[in-house]
Amino acid sequence: MTPATFLPSANAAPAGVSPAGLIRQLRRYPPVNFGRYLKFIVADQHVGWVQREFTDHLRAFPQVFDLDSAHVRLQNRLADFEARSAAMAEVLEAWRDQGLVPGWRHEFYPVARGFDLPPLLRMERAATPLFGVLSYGVNVNGLVGSGNDLRVWIGRRSPSKQVDPNMLDLLVGGGQPMGISVWDNLQKECREEAGIAPEMARRARPASVITLMIEAPEGLRVGLKFNYDLVLPADFTPRNTDGEVAEFRLMPVAELIDNLRSADAFMYDIALVQIDLLVRYGYIGPEDPDYLTLIAGLRQAIPFDPS
Amino acid sequence: MTPATFLPSANAAPAGVSPAGLIRQLRRYPPVNFGRYLKFIVADQHVGWVQREFTDHLRAFPQVFDLDSAHVRLQNRLADFEARSAAMAEVLEAWRDQGLVPGWRHEFYPVARGFDLPPLLRMERAATPLFGVLSYGVNVNGLVGSGNDLRVWIGRRSPSKQVDPNMLDLLVGGGQPMGISVWDNLQKECREEAGIAPEMARRARPASVITLMIEAPEGLRVGLKFNYDLVLPADFTPRNTDGEVAEFRLMPVAELIDNLRSADAFMYDIALVQIDLLVRYGYIGPEDPDYLTLIAGLRQAIPFDPS
Repeated sequence: MTPATFLPSANAAPAGVSPAGLIRQLRRYPPVNFGRYLKFIVADQHVGWVQREFTDHLRAFPQVFDLDSAHVRLQNRLADFEARSAAMAEVLEAWRDQGLVPGWRHEFYPVARGFDLPPLLRMERAATPLFGVLSYGVNVNGLVGSGNDLRVWIGRRSPSKQVDPNMLDLLVGGGQPMGISVWDNLQKECREEAGIAPEMARRARPASVITLMIEAPEGLRVGLKFNYDLVLPADFTPRNTDGEVAEFRLMPVAELIDNLRSADAFMYDIALVQIDLLVRYGYIGPEDPDYLTLIAGLRQAIPFDPS
Repeated sequence: MTPATFLPSANAAPAGVSPAGLIRQLRRYPPVNFGRYLKFIVADQHVGWVQREFTDHLRAFPQVFDLDSAHVRLQNRLADFEARSAAMAEVLEAWRDQGLVPGWRHEFYPVARGFDLPPLLRMERAATPLFGVLSYGVNVNGLVGSGNDLRVWIGRRSPSKQVDPNMLDLLVGGGQPMGISVWDNLQKECREEAGIAPEMARRARPASVITLMIEAPEGLRVGLKFNYDLVLPADFTPRNTDGEVAEFRLMPVAELIDNLRSADAFMYDIALVQIDLLVRYGYIGPEDPDYLTLIAGLRQAIPFDPS
């Protein structure tokens, strides 16, 4: 007897066969080569990673950073959140003026070993990969229907976006800065990115988290994303209000699966969010030889030494 | 604005507050003290853990095991699956006759570093904690309704069960031995444990996996469970046919949450399965200070050295 998992595709696979091939998404980036980085230490805690090639820029601030062959330490004389944040802001503004921090956001991210720990300092969002600190985001899967008739709202990013222009994206997703709860941020992003009214946005439900690690040209991206599901009425049409989305379409789940196993059209982190969705709703099962590898790959451990 | 997560309980928490306190379930067992164990090595691969106190029993089989201060090695002259399995069977049968392997099951488990890897040998299920090898299971959440009206079928284990008599359990759950697919095993367990006919059992959908590690008196239990959701009609009543279940009841989700955060009435691994369910359906969200710790605790890394 074969399992009655949902049909991955009407023409690509027989009923009951899991959609092998999704693993390609996890292979889009090689494993991180941590030998290329120094550990970034704040208050004796390992909170990030700095590219070795970048350390010359840190040496220009000997009153802020101590460096050895394996570590960049924010000096312990910077003894509290405000002192550390002010020193970091001065460094980052100087680098910005030198063109070292592209895409300044005017948004602060908390720096700590985890989202659930008190922040040791705040840092401009655009600088988080330079220090390889954890950055956060919130994502909303816009869903219509269920089973083989599930459709997922997919956005194509504006050609003018700084990161991943034109790539496929979720209905709603955004960074999770300091000073706003995940829930309030979700409401704000729903309104700005898809024109979703508060009454509808409040139906979103937390569903999972994913983590990701990517070696980008500017440094290490270490991310944790809070994922929500939002079941939408069939007649709802999203409407972008902030110019960040070129177009939206409602993609049948079979097309979503085929896309994920044959192309790199989705942003990397959004591909992981989609695989997480396929796992949670049973479009992938233990029959897929990659099932456990996929699940493990969605939530890799954050690569900081224990305190 | 507070999030519209489901009400954890009508009288225990205001609307929109996540059910803090579930973390107690993850604290029922202390972290594993790996210093108490030797690594079990087969074909130069780390596949398990043996209690130091148990090693005298292995020394009685010098033709099968090599021991040093940190390792128990199945001898490499046992060069293939059949040779290793035959040697292990001889050892285990001798131990069984000495009363060292209680609860002999006549079921074989595969021994390997992961479910998705070729097995190096087969091992009687009852012996898996003695060698701290991975054991597998399949679980089915029986669900009726949704949102605040969700109800979950819960079983109470028979007083005569060898493991965890009288504790609360799922609708359906069982070990996952060699020689039967996860899907076929699920169908069989649905029939035996809850009288669920094949037409209904086939509606089950894979939803997640959990892992667990427990230091039991007899050794280290390292488990990986495949979890399925099965939405049942409101008029369905389960009927146990194998004598392993004392009773079934349909537990409202608010009661389930209250139970999990105030008592240890559920089997440990089933408590994790229930928390996983609460995470996936949004009864817990980022507002819970333990949200990320709970999610991480559901799927700890399997503690074997990489090959």
